[in-house]
Amino acid sequence: MIYLDNAATAPLNEKAFLRAKDFITEYFYNPSARYRGGDEIARKLKSARKAVLSNIANDGFDLIFTSGGTEADNQAVFSSARRGNAVATAGEHSAVYECFTQLKSRGVEPRFAPLNRDGSVNESELLRLIDEKTTFVSVVHVNNETGAVNDICAIAKKIKSINPRIVFHSDGVQAYGKIPVRLTQDIDLYSISAHKIGALKGTGALVKNKTCNLQPLIFGGGQEGNLRSGTENTFGILCFCYAAEDILQNLRENGARLTQYREMLWELLEKPLFERISPDDGSPYILSVSAIGLKGEVLQRILWDNGVVVGTGSACSSKKPHSRVIEACGYGAKTLDGVLRLSFSPFTTQEEIKRSAFEINRAAKELKERLF
Amino acid sequence: MIYLDNAATAPLNEKAFLRAKDFITEYFYNPSARYRGGDEIARKLKSARKAVLSNIANDGFDLIFTSGGTEADNQAVFSSARRGNAVATAGEHSAVYECFTQLKSRGVEPRFAPLNRDGSVNESELLRLIDEKTTFVSVVHVNNETGAVNDICAIAKKIKSINPRIVFHSDGVQAYGKIPVRLTQDIDLYSISAHKIGALKGTGALVKNKTCNLQPLIFGGGQEGNLRSGTENTFGILCFCYAAEDILQNLRENGARLTQYREMLWELLEKPLFERISPDDGSPYILSVSAIGLKGEVLQRILWDNGVVVGTGSACSSKKPHSRVIEACGYGAKTLDGVLRLSFSPFTTQEEIKRSAFEINRAAKELKERLF
Repeated sequence: MIYLDNAATAPLNEKAFLRAKDFITEYFYNPSARYRGGDEIARKLKSARKAVLSNIANDGFDLIFTSGGTEADNQAVFSSARRGNAVATAGEHSAVYECFTQLKSRGVEPRFAPLNRDGSVNESELLRLIDEKTTFVSVVHVNNETGAVNDICAIAKKIKSINPRIVFHSDGVQAYGKIPVRLTQDIDLYSISAHKIGALKGTGALVKNKTCNLQPLIFGGGQEGNLRSGTENTFGILCFCYAAEDILQNLRENGARLTQYREMLWELLEKPLFERISPDDGSPYILSVSAIGLKGEVLQRILWDNGVVVGTGSACSSKKPHSRVIEACGYGAKTLDGVLRLSFSPFTTQEEIKRSAFEINRAAKELKERLF
Repeated sequence: MIYLDNAATAPLNEKAFLRAKDFITEYFYNPSARYRGGDEIARKLKSARKAVLSNIANDGFDLIFTSGGTEADNQAVFSSARRGNAVATAGEHSAVYECFTQLKSRGVEPRFAPLNRDGSVNESELLRLIDEKTTFVSVVHVNNETGAVNDICAIAKKIKSINPRIVFHSDGVQAYGKIPVRLTQDIDLYSISAHKIGALKGTGALVKNKTCNLQPLIFGGGQEGNLRSGTENTFGILCFCYAAEDILQNLRENGARLTQYREMLWELLEKPLFERISPDDGSPYILSVSAIGLKGEVLQRILWDNGVVVGTGSACSSKKPHSRVIEACGYGAKTLDGVLRLSFSPFTTQEEIKRSAFEINRAAKELKERLF
């Protein structure tokens, strides 16, 4: 199978997994236990925290481990958007978007900034939504459906110059381990996820600026500096740390190579059968296209049978007929129907790109013939 | 090392772990993906859900997977305790207790029922706290510090007869896989945890009566029937399912044997050096004692050095000087200082019990001589 749905989830990094297993088989202790075994795993967690964090931020930031990107996003929104209005982009992942739809019932006005055609946020429209009553702004770093990259550092700076009391959050789930990230002082909160880089589902983190006053979402034993209670998911956290170490080592080389592959794949797809949705300067790991007038899900199933695994938009919102995000980019029904998200990993090969292009073209032509 | 801190966390069930690994190495897909690989892991999750649930409840109940017992407790409290007053016992784990301390700021009056000397709830006092404005009641099933078992089925029935609109929750973290559990229709919500039975930290579940109107704590992609968003922790869930299968197979035999061991350990401890806190009819897996006048943490460290790992009270609240729960049982400072929680697993042997008793006696005598 050629797996081109890495943005939904990545195959297991076996090396990271086994390394973590070695440790927790011996140090299975509760990190809160006050004997030496507990101290040992607590120390290990501390160094994992530092390692995962230091890849993207300096000493001005902390990190709390969560059960994933979704929990991190929820904590960011509900901790900070407590009055006035809160602004997000129409391109947010549902983990932020659905929290925003809850805000109204909690007395906070949610506002959504429109997208450009490639999925990036329309910056001037975003800034126009911000006023002295805005308490929270969330801008996704890499759009998980198109791969468009928002320049969060520049956006955060402009937002803070309008209203410095705003808490600025970014969902970095599709950025961490994929594109270079370096958080600036204007960024308060940043969500990341483990399973997008080969570690386990059920692990993620919320990076926080030390100046940011974060509130817990989950209360209890006071773990994670009293900001996220519950016995620490030691195995998941160590897997995350080791997988991050692996993928970040070759971040730039991987990015350069995958940008080439992404463009090669686009070149090989037959036009005008396919329309491109992803920008040229987006994440190297995502190419979103549409087989206009065809059904993406049908293509997806044909391709599975022919050994190529592709996505059709965010797997997390697969219960809705069209992608909310691609719709917000301004595309009509015929394009929305045919969306395929092709997403790569550092292990994707040139050979796989070529064979995928062949299969994708063949499937689209066959389906078109069947229908017309 | 002899490990007698199983109530804090259990050693890894390697068999369950490897069985889960085999599956997710091949089926690493996102369970929301609409191709065959996604369907396959979604089906597997469905059968895991059914297996974990059927051990303790009938068809009138559902189960949602969470990131652990703490999240399950939080969701239960914050979903149901939204107005009027809410009642818990003074013996709740901090995952319930700390949520209750938050209720006041959310406009709900928290009430706490006192404990009997063994850690069980004083039932008549509990019932006296309930009135027509009570919306939520939480009674821990097995007290995690003393092992005292509350008869939650009988208590829930009495509570419902006073006010049938109350949502009744029980934290079953120390009960699941340890004592026979069969939920009755009067119970609305029940929290369980994976790492207490040899599966991984970071996995748990909230069992819900189908008649109960549960609200999400975490919003997003709509997983778990829209009650708990976030990509499912497939590996953790499968480990949980397989570890549960293992431990529940021999539940009654294990219980009978460990009750004998618990009593043997108590017999072997020197009196009046030690005072017993746990009841005779509590969980077979927990024996809580106090080395009166000595410091539990000091004994714990001496015992670690001599190859015996013991707890001193809930590891989850290890930052506080005394155990809040044992204090609520009515003990004074000298007893509170010396609390040791000795907790077992199905793998604990008679030989280990004997050697532990020897080491615990020796450590207490040594420490006493040093001090007086």
